[in-house]
Amino acid sequence: MKKLITAGSASIAFPDPVFIKSAASIVGSKEGEGPLGDVFDMISEDPMFGCDTWEAAESAIQKEAASLAVGKAGLQPRDIRMLFAGDLLAQSMASSFGVGEMGIPFYGLYGACSTMGEALSLGAMAITAGGGEHVLCVTSSHFASAEKEFRFPLGYAGQRPLSSTWTVTGGGACVLGCTPPGPEIPGCSAPLREGRGCAAITGITTGRIVDYGLKDSLNMGGCMAPAACDTIYQNLTDFGRSPSDYDAVITGDLGAVGKRILLDLLAEKGLDISGIHEDCGLLIFTNSTQDTHSGGSGCGCSATVLAGYLLPKVVSGKWKRILFVPTGALLSKVSFNEGESVPGIAHGVVIEHVEVQ
Amino acid sequence: MKKLITAGSASIAFPDPVFIKSAASIVGSKEGEGPLGDVFDMISEDPMFGCDTWEAAESAIQKEAASLAVGKAGLQPRDIRMLFAGDLLAQSMASSFGVGEMGIPFYGLYGACSTMGEALSLGAMAITAGGGEHVLCVTSSHFASAEKEFRFPLGYAGQRPLSSTWTVTGGGACVLGCTPPGPEIPGCSAPLREGRGCAAITGITTGRIVDYGLKDSLNMGGCMAPAACDTIYQNLTDFGRSPSDYDAVITGDLGAVGKRILLDLLAEKGLDISGIHEDCGLLIFTNSTQDTHSGGSGCGCSATVLAGYLLPKVVSGKWKRILFVPTGALLSKVSFNEGESVPGIAHGVVIEHVEVQ
Repeated sequence: MKKLITAGSASIAFPDPVFIKSAASIVGSKEGEGPLGDVFDMISEDPMFGCDTWEAAESAIQKEAASLAVGKAGLQPRDIRMLFAGDLLAQSMASSFGVGEMGIPFYGLYGACSTMGEALSLGAMAITAGGGEHVLCVTSSHFASAEKEFRFPLGYAGQRPLSSTWTVTGGGACVLGCTPPGPEIPGCSAPLREGRGCAAITGITTGRIVDYGLKDSLNMGGCMAPAACDTIYQNLTDFGRSPSDYDAVITGDLGAVGKRILLDLLAEKGLDISGIHEDCGLLIFTNSTQDTHSGGSGCGCSATVLAGYLLPKVVSGKWKRILFVPTGALLSKVSFNEGESVPGIAHGVVIEHVEVQ
Repeated sequence: MKKLITAGSASIAFPDPVFIKSAASIVGSKEGEGPLGDVFDMISEDPMFGCDTWEAAESAIQKEAASLAVGKAGLQPRDIRMLFAGDLLAQSMASSFGVGEMGIPFYGLYGACSTMGEALSLGAMAITAGGGEHVLCVTSSHFASAEKEFRFPLGYAGQRPLSSTWTVTGGGACVLGCTPPGPEIPGCSAPLREGRGCAAITGITTGRIVDYGLKDSLNMGGCMAPAACDTIYQNLTDFGRSPSDYDAVITGDLGAVGKRILLDLLAEKGLDISGIHEDCGLLIFTNSTQDTHSGGSGCGCSATVLAGYLLPKVVSGKWKRILFVPTGALLSKVSFNEGESVPGIAHGVVIEHVEVQ
């Protein structure tokens, strides 16, 4: 009988840590002006990223972030066995162009804004199966391509309700591997390592689609909070942990509105994570000065905050164990126009500080 | 050092066979009138499948196919550890509704019409990693939802060029597992087994995005043929096989036009698969009487032909080893309107006849 590595009903406990060998983040100017402006690898003043269309700009972000992560790991694209990528656009177009040119065997994903959690989960499973020494996970979003895809033409200048979020212009990428990242070689590599400290994925909780019947596409935090609650609760149950076993539980893009709902829903289950909860959408912008309303969102939100802000805290040992829970709202223009609800999904990734030789 | 199961530069050779425990297919009436009409599990006379919209109809197909496969394996949804699903619609909407209600931990995929290949590949990797005893792979397409998504309103009655394909209305699903399917229990299960014969996934070749710069979205066979060629060539190279090591090489939906290009491209590499090549899009319709032009297409094309026609031939032992290569054209309305090319991708899955106790 095959040795299973499952935990509880929806989680996996990896027998060997899956190391995050490098991480890269590229953002637009608004994200650069936000509270995390210092931590990103690159801030582009040009929202077109030198391209002719918003979609091509997003592809460029994704390719640059992917290339940067591969380079930081001291690798070439040919060293990467598989690429897991996705974005918000119809038919995941930002991922089909750009990273396609890298020539890496490719799996396209769609998990809305939870895609970085999905990519890390599948990447970690691929590494655990022995499917390669290195895999690459990358996601992106772009404010303008997302507004065009889901909402109104920018020139229409529609009013945004206070529950709405602002799609992050940015791309984040991580290289995963079965061996720890080596020390930095100046000019050659900048792996995710500080002294002997590294970050590794030790477990995952696969999200279920959760639909409370909410139909307000401009309150995605509200639509996604039940899924985040389900995944966090499931993770704690499956691993037999309490909130105090984590230094931080970080959701993707619930924003101010979704955060409140999440904390309320968890309280109903007798769980209090208020002291350790962060949300990437609330970390990346300052609403009072940036007019971003409920917070940031988009596949690029959790991916860039992970790469630039969360992982360094794990590597340094400030955080010993975190639960990263990117959240996705499963809607399309068509489903919205047809009066469907907006189901949510959230994928949980356990990331731990590991000391290596 | 971790034991790798990689083969060549883009393939995996699974150390233990990943069994296809059951398979199910549901199609619309046009597919039911085609040459494979007898082999599908269910043919619906109602193109709306009892729903109000084309998208909801497609979700219903997907859910029914998934439920049927789970039932045929003698399982309940709670026995399924992960669900890999995708479709052609923007933001993979057909998969977000329908199967979401089954409550199975969910990974959404986007590989255009190659999605069944992607789902089987990731499912087999998950099983190999020890991620669960059973996973479920399901994809769908619907003629009317696809026309609405990519082309003209049906009422417009646009002329279709001879290179165009007809999107299959159908959904296919497979349950994968680490143990062989048991014998049939009448009234309880109808697993994919005949005597001691079963079908198992023994290897995969992950597709790369291949872009020859073609921009004709009504010649998807031409756009995808280079990717199919790349994956088939890579599979033979990685596993050190020649075409004669396969009883059949079956592409997804190249159609008549794409098939000719594929055979030409492989001939340039010194490979002749003309005697063993089949294409699901050519198998499912008869152009002369069904006016389907180059052939069938859509995620549901390769998925239903696999479930209804290909797998039984492997299980019976008529075919000992096949290479299943679903093909996808990576385009969207927006990328087409912006003048982008149509890159292709194809995922290779090696399926073998296995005798069990």
